[in-house]
Amino acid sequence: MGDKPIWEQIGSSFVQHYYHIFDTDRTQLGSLYIDASCLTWEGQQCQGKTAIVEKLSSLPFQKIQHSITSQDHQPTPDSCILSMVVGQLKADEDPIIGFHQIFILKNISDAWVCTNDMFRLALHNYG
Amino acid sequence: MGDKPIWEQIGSSFVQHYYHIFDTDRTQLGSLYIDASCLTWEGQQCQGKTAIVEKLSSLPFQKIQHSITSQDHQPTPDSCILSMVVGQLKADEDPIIGFHQIFILKNISDAWVCTNDMFRLALHNYG
Repeated sequence: MGDKPIWEQIGSSFVQHYYHIFDTDRTQLGSLYIDASCLTWEGQQCQGKTAIVEKLSSLPFQKIQHSITSQDHQPTPDSCILSMVVGQLKADEDPIIGFHQIFILKNISDAWVCTNDMFRLALHNYG
Repeated sequence: MGDKPIWEQIGSSFVQHYYHIFDTDRTQLGSLYIDASCLTWEGQQCQGKTAIVEKLSSLPFQKIQHSITSQDHQPTPDSCILSMVVGQLKADEDPIIGFHQIFILKNISDAWVCTNDMFRLALHNYG
């Protein structure tokens, strides 16, 4: 980790933490968002910690497991971090499916929180 | 367009403009970036208008055509716009392939420029 730029260390720690919580108990994701946070999930928008956790908690599966194929991180001019994750997930007994997700992380009161989150399944993009 | 939020109008206009220039003459993309802009192209990072245009111009194809499958846009807390594009592209006579790309747009001197750009082909993500 030591040789990597700081935004990459922070971004990849966040990503690891996010999917760990998502896969173990996604009702606990609220601490990663703030009331200004936006989520766009498969084109559906919602805003705010409460609405986001409600959306993620109500997704229709019991078990889920994410695995990451690639992740890219960049610093933004406003001292945020932009992260793009490409990976695969397995929900319940469904077939494995690809997904991509992006996050903007912002440092607020010495903690990194997610202000923007977009998720799409890789359903219709096979070339 | 009138009913859509302003960030969605700006984001989708930018996306349309970007791929139009990319597909007709990608050496002209410089006006969309600034010297602080970051590009991560298939995991390779470069920074600054000049380096980005050099990278995009040197990609090994003559003809390219993008088509967009989905696009999502969000406002960020720092008055930027975050856009995620999923689509397909055809380069020269190669088979059509999926891609995903994200942009952060920032208003500088009354123009929207791209400060952050990440691109990945959907090569290894078929589930």
